[in-house]
Amino acid sequence: MSKNKPLILVTNDDGITSPGIRVLVETMQEIGEVVVVAPDSPQSGMGHAITIGEVIRVNEEHLFEGVKAFSCSGTPADCVKIAKSEVLKGRKLDLVVSGINHGANTSISVLYSGTMSAAIEGAVEGIPAIGFSLCEYGWDADFSHVKKYVQIITEKVLENGLPKEIALNVNFPMKQDEPIKGIKVCRQARARWQEEFDKRNDPMGRTYYWMAGQFKNLDKGVDNDVWAIDNNYVAVVPTQFDLSAYHAVNIINEWGL
Amino acid sequence: MSKNKPLILVTNDDGITSPGIRVLVETMQEIGEVVVVAPDSPQSGMGHAITIGEVIRVNEEHLFEGVKAFSCSGTPADCVKIAKSEVLKGRKLDLVVSGINHGANTSISVLYSGTMSAAIEGAVEGIPAIGFSLCEYGWDADFSHVKKYVQIITEKVLENGLPKEIALNVNFPMKQDEPIKGIKVCRQARARWQEEFDKRNDPMGRTYYWMAGQFKNLDKGVDNDVWAIDNNYVAVVPTQFDLSAYHAVNIINEWGL
Repeated sequence: MSKNKPLILVTNDDGITSPGIRVLVETMQEIGEVVVVAPDSPQSGMGHAITIGEVIRVNEEHLFEGVKAFSCSGTPADCVKIAKSEVLKGRKLDLVVSGINHGANTSISVLYSGTMSAAIEGAVEGIPAIGFSLCEYGWDADFSHVKKYVQIITEKVLENGLPKEIALNVNFPMKQDEPIKGIKVCRQARARWQEEFDKRNDPMGRTYYWMAGQFKNLDKGVDNDVWAIDNNYVAVVPTQFDLSAYHAVNIINEWGL
Repeated sequence: MSKNKPLILVTNDDGITSPGIRVLVETMQEIGEVVVVAPDSPQSGMGHAITIGEVIRVNEEHLFEGVKAFSCSGTPADCVKIAKSEVLKGRKLDLVVSGINHGANTSISVLYSGTMSAAIEGAVEGIPAIGFSLCEYGWDADFSHVKKYVQIITEKVLENGLPKEIALNVNFPMKQDEPIKGIKVCRQARARWQEEFDKRNDPMGRTYYWMAGQFKNLDKGVDNDVWAIDNNYVAVVPTQFDLSAYHAVNIINEWGL
């Protein structure tokens, strides 16, 4: 392995056996030395969860030709942490990539996204990091139109680095008849999920719920990720983990607390 | 119950039996009509996780004198969602409060915090929301010095509302000989957790890990939450869920993607 090859950690939240991570591993193999540490089971919707009350297991897997790969019982954020300090034993990572997620992580979904929590964890650790998601849920999703864009964006990040404390949230439109129109760098759309819990009874007659709901786009702008996806562009949102609302500090100071 | 009493949802991430939620319920009972929907087991470190691959259970509990209370098998964010649409069946909530957490949720810990995910979920739903945390982990933590500040901050939020798309992250110092010096409205400190996984073998000889680590404060400022706590102030950070790094959009646009 050449010393000049960047060292790239690949992870995801759909689990190490997902078709999406395979596409990402294959694309990254053309760019650098790849190590995979990914959840041993699906972790969608895990947000930025970490495992602090239970133990974590890590097992070597033989799933990708010529690539060291490990499944982990923890969350996507755990995978990044344990990859860095245990699997790679402090070797310097040049890049963390997460995905390719089966399903959109645009707009407010970034809060709930395990895919993006892994990328943000990379950014917290000071490593350039990108989360990739395809706006198509199925396990048989077609990734053929996105590989080129994964390459372009990854190479630009390796070339330029990323601004401090920022990860990229990249969403791809599902495959359409026309090719993707290009890349839009944009902001997170203003939107929310309107929950509709599906209430059922189990065979013992006890009530349970499935979380369901509809995505409500509240944003009329053309500079946001939902607009980009709806118009067949790749959406790239620089995403930060400083959640301080600086503009609100003065407002609240006026309360005279 | 007077019609003028605000309707307040109380939740947390330590679970419905924690001492901290009891302090919060008792304090809120003096302010409004209280409904509790909180996890049936500890959910610390759950970040903004939601339950989408498993069912959710909700059970009425009789834990608080004169207060409707429900345990929920889901995450803190689930609790807010299901409280709103199922337990309260669309009754308008005036406030969501979460905590009082046993342990600090200052600085970068806000990302991993189940306490704050519930408050942020409230803000996403357009409800004024506050997460309260005490910087002391033990189940026997002393909350006697914080009740007054929970009241002050809650009443100010009910009186003034909160800026749009903002929740408050409130941290209290652990009890000291001197009384708390006051309240500082501030920003999230720049810091990170330096992980040190504790590697062990189980009785079958297989390896497992416990996540451990040390909090590394990288911030020399005096306008952040860690400084406030270290100096015996209550730290109030207005916290947002728009993660877009607006300042980085132009930088990345210059790459010519």
